[in-house]
Amino acid sequence: MQYTPWTIRSEDFTPEKRQSLGALFLVSNGYFGVRGFVEEDPTGEMGNGCIFVAGVNGDGADKREIVEGKRRDLCNITNVLRLRIAVDGEVVDGIADTTDAYRLLDMKTAVSSRHYIWKNALEVDTLRFADMANVHRIGQRTVLRAQKPLSLTFHALLDSNVYNHNFESCEPMPIQPGLNHIVSRTLGDNRLSTRLDDEDSTTLYAGQQLRLCLNGTPLNGVPYADEMATGRRFDVTMDAGDELVLEKLAAVYTDKECPDAADLLDAFMSTPADYAEAYAAHCAAWEARWAIADVQLDTETDDQTALRYNLFQLMGVCPMHTDRVSIGARGLTGEMYEGCVFWDNEIFQLPFFVFTDPAAARRLLAFRYHNLPAAKRLAAFHWFEGAMFPWESCEKGREQTALDHAYYSIHIVGDIAYAIRQYVQATGDLAFLWEKGAEILLETSRFWVSRVDYSKRDGHYHLFRVRGPNEYDHYVDDNAFTNYLAAENLHIAVDTLTQMKTAAPEQYRALCEKTGFQPSEMDKWNEIAGNLYVAYDEELHLVGEDSTYMDRRPLDLKRAKPTAKRILESGTMTYQMMTFYQLTKQSDTVTLMCLLPEKFTEQERIAAYDYYEPRTAHDSSLSYAPYAWMAARLGKVEQAYDYFKICAYLDIADLKLNTISGLHFANFGGTWQATVFGFGGAQYAEGVLRIDPHLPDTWNGMRYRLCVRGGIVSVDISGDRIQLTADGLTEDLPICVGGQKALLNSELTTAEFRL
Amino acid sequence: MQYTPWTIRSEDFTPEKRQSLGALFLVSNGYFGVRGFVEEDPTGEMGNGCIFVAGVNGDGADKREIVEGKRRDLCNITNVLRLRIAVDGEVVDGIADTTDAYRLLDMKTAVSSRHYIWKNALEVDTLRFADMANVHRIGQRTVLRAQKPLSLTFHALLDSNVYNHNFESCEPMPIQPGLNHIVSRTLGDNRLSTRLDDEDSTTLYAGQQLRLCLNGTPLNGVPYADEMATGRRFDVTMDAGDELVLEKLAAVYTDKECPDAADLLDAFMSTPADYAEAYAAHCAAWEARWAIADVQLDTETDDQTALRYNLFQLMGVCPMHTDRVSIGARGLTGEMYEGCVFWDNEIFQLPFFVFTDPAAARRLLAFRYHNLPAAKRLAAFHWFEGAMFPWESCEKGREQTALDHAYYSIHIVGDIAYAIRQYVQATGDLAFLWEKGAEILLETSRFWVSRVDYSKRDGHYHLFRVRGPNEYDHYVDDNAFTNYLAAENLHIAVDTLTQMKTAAPEQYRALCEKTGFQPSEMDKWNEIAGNLYVAYDEELHLVGEDSTYMDRRPLDLKRAKPTAKRILESGTMTYQMMTFYQLTKQSDTVTLMCLLPEKFTEQERIAAYDYYEPRTAHDSSLSYAPYAWMAARLGKVEQAYDYFKICAYLDIADLKLNTISGLHFANFGGTWQATVFGFGGAQYAEGVLRIDPHLPDTWNGMRYRLCVRGGIVSVDISGDRIQLTADGLTEDLPICVGGQKALLNSELTTAEFRL
Repeated sequence: MQYTPWTIRSEDFTPEKRQSLGALFLVSNGYFGVRGFVEEDPTGEMGNGCIFVAGVNGDGADKREIVEGKRRDLCNITNVLRLRIAVDGEVVDGIADTTDAYRLLDMKTAVSSRHYIWKNALEVDTLRFADMANVHRIGQRTVLRAQKPLSLTFHALLDSNVYNHNFESCEPMPIQPGLNHIVSRTLGDNRLSTRLDDEDSTTLYAGQQLRLCLNGTPLNGVPYADEMATGRRFDVTMDAGDELVLEKLAAVYTDKECPDAADLLDAFMSTPADYAEAYAAHCAAWEARWAIADVQLDTETDDQTALRYNLFQLMGVCPMHTDRVSIGARGLTGEMYEGCVFWDNEIFQLPFFVFTDPAAARRLLAFRYHNLPAAKRLAAFHWFEGAMFPWESCEKGREQTALDHAYYSIHIVGDIAYAIRQYVQATGDLAFLWEKGAEILLETSRFWVSRVDYSKRDGHYHLFRVRGPNEYDHYVDDNAFTNYLAAENLHIAVDTLTQMKTAAPEQYRALCEKTGFQPSEMDKWNEIAGNLYVAYDEELHLVGEDSTYMDRRPLDLKRAKPTAKRILESGTMTYQMMTFYQLTKQSDTVTLMCLLPEKFTEQERIAAYDYYEPRTAHDSSLSYAPYAWMAARLGKVEQAYDYFKICAYLDIADLKLNTISGLHFANFGGTWQATVFGFGGAQYAEGVLRIDPHLPDTWNGMRYRLCVRGGIVSVDISGDRIQLTADGLTEDLPICVGGQKALLNSELTTAEFRL
Repeated sequence: MQYTPWTIRSEDFTPEKRQSLGALFLVSNGYFGVRGFVEEDPTGEMGNGCIFVAGVNGDGADKREIVEGKRRDLCNITNVLRLRIAVDGEVVDGIADTTDAYRLLDMKTAVSSRHYIWKNALEVDTLRFADMANVHRIGQRTVLRAQKPLSLTFHALLDSNVYNHNFESCEPMPIQPGLNHIVSRTLGDNRLSTRLDDEDSTTLYAGQQLRLCLNGTPLNGVPYADEMATGRRFDVTMDAGDELVLEKLAAVYTDKECPDAADLLDAFMSTPADYAEAYAAHCAAWEARWAIADVQLDTETDDQTALRYNLFQLMGVCPMHTDRVSIGARGLTGEMYEGCVFWDNEIFQLPFFVFTDPAAARRLLAFRYHNLPAAKRLAAFHWFEGAMFPWESCEKGREQTALDHAYYSIHIVGDIAYAIRQYVQATGDLAFLWEKGAEILLETSRFWVSRVDYSKRDGHYHLFRVRGPNEYDHYVDDNAFTNYLAAENLHIAVDTLTQMKTAAPEQYRALCEKTGFQPSEMDKWNEIAGNLYVAYDEELHLVGEDSTYMDRRPLDLKRAKPTAKRILESGTMTYQMMTFYQLTKQSDTVTLMCLLPEKFTEQERIAAYDYYEPRTAHDSSLSYAPYAWMAARLGKVEQAYDYFKICAYLDIADLKLNTISGLHFANFGGTWQATVFGFGGAQYAEGVLRIDPHLPDTWNGMRYRLCVRGGIVSVDISGDRIQLTADGLTEDLPICVGGQKALLNSELTTAEFRL
């Protein structure tokens, strides 16, 4: 792998790597996820998928116990980028008989390309982009240069010969027989419609517009169709030095997100598309996003590239076109986790959008609002009150995971409340709060009231039998993470409804009517929030991960996890044994203290870090970033940087050997937080923007931007000099840099500090 | 069903009932379990099995997660009772075209018989017994009486056309395709050997000796063999009034329990057997057992019959021939639970044997001793020390259940220690203690040391994450039942090893050498035993079932369990939800207080009964008897009798509708304890036999016998008069009846009291 600040490049086309690189070289635009598959490979072996569309799920290849509905996998849709190349009757598959072969991902323009020379006869360059300016489109440009006289046959196709795989774990595994989910289809010149065998019987409409030129002269070709594919065929005789250029725009609409999908495809097909114009608009859209989201590092390491990769994929995965889908655990990069939405969204990814693309953040939270009725049904199913958001939410808000997860992993409820407050505080978007947020806060508070138990014996409220971020316990009592987030949820709800009564009285009345809310309910909310039990060791100033963690026996982690393999795959311990030891699967209490630093003293945060860090197996990709973040905040910069080297490079270096099954989007968001909140030292709370950077030795400086209260604040750190520049502020923004207070507003746009 | 004091009789041959009655009309002798199948039914539909042999297990039809080994079902062995009857070429199957049909079980002689008249042409009587005087034999006697002239074809066969079923739950279910486990066989006249496809490749040798007489005149018949069966065929012409009598003795040996099985069968076949002699010896053996074990009730209810049925089956299931097998949860009555041994053995069944057949009890405990090495391996597998007896033990002592049960249900370890003490106290059998018991006690104590955790925060030892008798919790902390039994285990070990050092110094030294035991280990045992945490509500005098039970929310049991169906089958709650409520699947703390009454005040026992009783779902057959027992001890005689009406009649009335899958042997043992320890008021502890009876209104009196310290004490209760008669005592036996103390010994053999 070779890096430049904006690109990654790989020359590895070995079968083992081809599929994991297929995930790595993915380009996406929130509607499409287009894996880095080889378009001209005729084996039909699509790696772990070729193209996914957000929210389009077919029947899964296997079923498992779920609360409602059945398992639905993210579908491989029609391959709209299919190429077939043959020279003098011989197939060019993009892999065999190639020299000078490489892939390149340009993150600045979000273009994934390949280059190779076939048998010293044909030079091939091909690129694709998922159009960020018009998310229903994918662009493809292929250049074929003859190095000797040859006869070329070239197909540009829409191909329905795709299938889904069967993932049960995130381990790399050979491709298994999958289900071809396409039930019916219509073949026509450059159009293909297919019906997916999902509960909605989704129909997918795909079309393409082509322009093929030989040395600048357009060629027509002939229509082509076979059992599985449709498109156009070109037979070309080329001399040495001849150049054939295919420019293609493909479009996809489904009647799941567009009731008028057929008409939309008609409109696309009937209006000649200009590839160059589309490409330019796509690049401009990405330029605008990078202008805010980029984090620039002054370093001679590859960290700049690695970090940008994280941000690049986050921007790519975020739905721009709708608030009816959200970001799945593996985004649009693979079938794993069924395209479903976890706490990853609120706790790991959302902050990046809150502070670099607030409109996107609003859509992601609106997704939860739309699923509030489903969350209320889930609560009722379990004999609880209010809204119980599912641990693993399909796009319709239904629980899609095994019952144990569904029932115990309730911190997701508090995570959503936390995210609402973070969004509203950072943006000042009270309209969202009154329209949607308040109702979520109210119904989730009711859930907590019904979920806690009061113990007369100790005078505390408890959350018995929960599964915290440390999923190596079947369940525990009083997981500190869960209890703190639950208490926050209740506090935020009280604050919100109290404020709403006077600030938005009509909406408040409507909400009371809709929900039957009585202000007296808040007495209970306050009582519970103020009295939820958390285990605490006074001597060590140590917050207990749960009620008995500190009493459990120490574990020799080297015995349990002798290699990088996760413990359960190491064959050293059974799942049952794990629950017996001081063993944390992934950052738990430390993540809590990242989220709510003001609730803990520095002594407590240090104690927690020092206690839990050696007890953490990091058997989840969600573990490293919070440790990097917390370590940086505590000034343990060297340790922080060690963790950064894992989380920032997790997928591009395939450190967990499971990139094949999709990219780790929570980790991407965590990496941004570790970088900006950790090393960059940014913290926005209670109306004050605080900056307390702790840069690694190898970084001479860094620059990042934050969207705050409608403005954009640039933070430029260079050695001991910190400069803040604000743009678009309409109100005063108190800032505090290294303890020095100042104010930014529309007049005072710059402030400089020395540490 | 019709009852006499010694018999039960049923005329129900409907398909629904035929199979559950097949279990009910089972006869067994500890080696064989012979279900009440219809021998002449040619459909090959053997109900839920026909004949089982203790410890003979083949591959199960399904596999599930286990710690070691693979699932092995109790095998249906060769059907050695197969009959074929045809009249004028028409098959007589024992069911169709019958009148006056009934089955009869005579418990006094342990004979199961059937009678019917076929088409007013042939009267059939057939009986079978599992020979209690020679456990490898089964006797069968069939009488056919012609009511009109007819031509009869009659086969008496050994039939290998048997197969196993596939049980996943104890619910009645249609027969599923099973596995014919017979791999190879040898056909010969009246002999059949088959090989079972189990890990031992067990070979089973079966033979039969026949005697057929027409009106007293012997007939020879001809040898018969087909693909699956072998035996003898008789073609007989009968006039009205003619009587054909078949007397048959079949024998089975397997090379699993008899290395010389083939020779043993040869010996059987070469010595002419006398059916009448065998039958007489069988009846005498049963008479001897009943002479001690019978409990006589002076009542006009059916309780006498129901109670005897419980005792009858307990005596039948107990292995007489070996201490290498024990009693499975469903005995020898069905494949369910794979013939495996649970705590049922020590806590529910063993006391009956301790007090009515000490030699049998000794064998059952020796079974555990033989499996001590396997228990040590299981402990090491889980990183524990000492011996961890498996929750579900196959005859080789391996864990055969799912990992969760295996890991959490550790009270089995303490249950075994408890049983050892009960046996030794009642029998005075110190030889057993020094030879086998002490080593079990030592290694189980080491297990507890490695299994407890000490909490600095509260200064107590804890048993975190255990599953108590209430299996409706995935796991809990500090289940009181488990903690008390663990502490008892440690106390008993200390007492035993301390006593052994002086009483059996050579064996003590050998034990120290074998186990590396250091007397200083006992300090820790004492420390833990004295300081294991148990939740306790001072105000209510209430022992907490576990650390948080009392803090959980109350459950409306009528909502959760609206019918007699178990909760999980009612569809009202998920398994996960259950853990949230004050819900006890089956008697838990109340059972504890039955076992260790001296550890609790009467106030505590009343508090526990009154608190847990309405919170108990009785979703296990192990629940009713302890409630009956405790209620009787507390003088709540009416409630006790209500529970007795369930436990005593559980199988004969098929109250749980699951008798089809086998009889409930733990409940049989529990019923005896509820009767003798509960209503009969017997308690033998610390060398004193106490009798404090509380009889139900419908019982005018009761009489039972107890083997104590080598003697037999008869307890005769009639109204307010209680008479104790001792036989064979070699030492003084202090007694205490209704608070009045006395002494029995070889001189003073009778004492009478008035309450």
